[in-house]
Amino acid sequence: MSLLVMKFGGTSLATIDLIKKAAARVEAEVSHGYNVIVIVSAMSEKTNQLVGWVNDISSMYDAREYDAVVSSGEQVTAGLLALVLQENSIPARSWQGWQVPLKTVGSHSAARISEIPTDNLKSKFSEGMKVAVVAGFQGISSEGRITTLGRGGSDTTAVAFAAAFNAKRCDIYTDVDGVYTTDPRICDKARKLNQISFEEMLEMASLGAKVLQTRSVELAMRFKVKLRVLSSFDEQVTNTGTIVCREEDVMEKNVVAGVAFSRDEAQMTLLGVNDRPGIAAAIFGPLSVSGINVDMIVQNISEDGLTNMTFSCPIDQVARAQKTISKCKDDGELKFSKLLVDTNVAKVSVVGIGMRSHAGVAAQMFNALKVENINIKVISTSEIKISVLIDRKYLELAVHALHDDFQLEKSS
Amino acid sequence: MSLLVMKFGGTSLATIDLIKKAAARVEAEVSHGYNVIVIVSAMSEKTNQLVGWVNDISSMYDAREYDAVVSSGEQVTAGLLALVLQENSIPARSWQGWQVPLKTVGSHSAARISEIPTDNLKSKFSEGMKVAVVAGFQGISSEGRITTLGRGGSDTTAVAFAAAFNAKRCDIYTDVDGVYTTDPRICDKARKLNQISFEEMLEMASLGAKVLQTRSVELAMRFKVKLRVLSSFDEQVTNTGTIVCREEDVMEKNVVAGVAFSRDEAQMTLLGVNDRPGIAAAIFGPLSVSGINVDMIVQNISEDGLTNMTFSCPIDQVARAQKTISKCKDDGELKFSKLLVDTNVAKVSVVGIGMRSHAGVAAQMFNALKVENINIKVISTSEIKISVLIDRKYLELAVHALHDDFQLEKSS
Repeated sequence: MSLLVMKFGGTSLATIDLIKKAAARVEAEVSHGYNVIVIVSAMSEKTNQLVGWVNDISSMYDAREYDAVVSSGEQVTAGLLALVLQENSIPARSWQGWQVPLKTVGSHSAARISEIPTDNLKSKFSEGMKVAVVAGFQGISSEGRITTLGRGGSDTTAVAFAAAFNAKRCDIYTDVDGVYTTDPRICDKARKLNQISFEEMLEMASLGAKVLQTRSVELAMRFKVKLRVLSSFDEQVTNTGTIVCREEDVMEKNVVAGVAFSRDEAQMTLLGVNDRPGIAAAIFGPLSVSGINVDMIVQNISEDGLTNMTFSCPIDQVARAQKTISKCKDDGELKFSKLLVDTNVAKVSVVGIGMRSHAGVAAQMFNALKVENINIKVISTSEIKISVLIDRKYLELAVHALHDDFQLEKSS
Repeated sequence: MSLLVMKFGGTSLATIDLIKKAAARVEAEVSHGYNVIVIVSAMSEKTNQLVGWVNDISSMYDAREYDAVVSSGEQVTAGLLALVLQENSIPARSWQGWQVPLKTVGSHSAARISEIPTDNLKSKFSEGMKVAVVAGFQGISSEGRITTLGRGGSDTTAVAFAAAFNAKRCDIYTDVDGVYTTDPRICDKARKLNQISFEEMLEMASLGAKVLQTRSVELAMRFKVKLRVLSSFDEQVTNTGTIVCREEDVMEKNVVAGVAFSRDEAQMTLLGVNDRPGIAAAIFGPLSVSGINVDMIVQNISEDGLTNMTFSCPIDQVARAQKTISKCKDDGELKFSKLLVDTNVAKVSVVGIGMRSHAGVAAQMFNALKVENINIKVISTSEIKISVLIDRKYLELAVHALHDDFQLEKSS
């Protein structure tokens, strides 16, 4: 018996009517002969309400109690969806994380999945159960307490179940109809991709495309789970979403898959840094300890033993980063003449596995930006992406220019 | 170390501010040297919302899923109360029913408590935990699924914990400040009782005084748990509530403890019933199977082999009772000439353990009603109560007359 995993997010389960629509999608797959594991999020806004209450009580809350409180939302939607399926004569039941049990390790409210024993569900499937509705985002610790996986944990739960049960596919139902070449709200020529490779999706996700949670894509890549992202609101048969799969299974072979961007970046430059072995560690070690997500790093060549060090980080971490660096200077662990901060920058990236075999993508990108007179402040590259930091005011212009220049509106 | 059980109802936990007030009461007991087990209900109206969703989906819902859904409300309040206590430096943690584990038997959504192992909580108390906040109303079945105890189940949970842990007292915090001689909304002379015996409380509870759930009083009586009912809103030191305890511990010795009443009664009379052995069983057996809560029963003496049989039941069960009786007649299992139905009746009762040793209470009651020209339709007595059915329009008059006549406004 083939098995599918289907995941519904909070906006897809926000009301009883929407839960009934989700159930209809599950029933359609059952009628195609599948057993189904459905992973559910809490009703939209419910988790925010619960988190709000916890924060009202304490800013230094016990994460174990936080987990007990916020995990309750998925318990409700799991039970309700199972009830709708039963009402439509589909043998279904709900499972809490601790009932599966989905075992976790690591800290509460950011736990990691360590094991999903399949015996319990498999035995129920063999007794005739067609659908297991599992509360997403949660598990149980070795101490028997409820844990949660952190935001986006329901995507990760879905992929982990798909891996554990060797599912044919893991369908993520959400409020967008797939992965686009870039954000359609910024660029109306953006085209929905029918397929994208794990590696590209990972870069797109971590670069600001919010369709899938990065952790879930990593997990899918590791366990070769075929992921599909599709809309739970579009009822057309052409609503086939975007398949995220192994590179060799991607049929479309554009060199560049998409243009990703991140608006809220800041650029910080340390001038006149005393260049010595270990200087990078002296700067970025303390920043890491302070929880600063340093992204791009550029070190200029050294002159007279002095160099400039530039890095970027999310804009809301600037104050903390400044404080950390000042402290390093005061402690005598770091010498520099001046710290420059620019909070008016944004990051634009082109992503594509085709870059591996096609030279000249970087040159084409830089040229396209030059044509528009957009100055590049920092460059960073990986095997399958090129990112640049530019003035934020040029962000939309840059996205349009790159989308046009790489002809992303056309399928290969 | 002495242990207290405290229970807070939904109106006492309806907002974060109210949860903080409940926490202050718990802290006061901790500062008096107690370890405390707190049993919590869901936030006021939350359970109704969850039940509403389930009913929206199906009228024939799977009670196992119902339980998974509705038990989530207590999970939230348990976590939040534990967080507030921790914030105030009280070592506390929350426990779900399945974590204790509170083991249950019987049908889902109306399960009965079979066992509360004390090891888990005791070991945490010995490690320094001061307060265990337990989600009320719920447990776990032998199949590992969440069960609920039915409405009012949180009171029952509290008493069961008090019995299992041999608690010094079980304090039920609610929205009234104790048990009254009668409903203060009907009779402004109603007086709060400082003490009441289990037996009297049981009669008062089942006769319509809604302060405590009948099951919880029965359980307290069986295990000799000293119960206290008090207000969670009254912050005066004189807010000492009503103690429900063993008869021999009651200091006040009024003959009559209170006047209870039930407004929504109906009286049904079968005229010309063929009087034969087994005729009562032939009538009340089928009614019981149909789920009719028959209360008072009166059989007249027989004339010419025919008798009249009168009984009362809740007014909303009349249609079902009529249907059941008609079917018995149609099936030839019951012969009678006519069925009279009166839906304009109410029940008034005087309750008191003093009746056991004081003759003349019934006579005094009947006389007090006669003085007001109130006609008695049906009489039923037990060792410690006398109930009469009267026209509903005389209900308030009867309550006032009896309260005055037995001088219940005065403490003994």
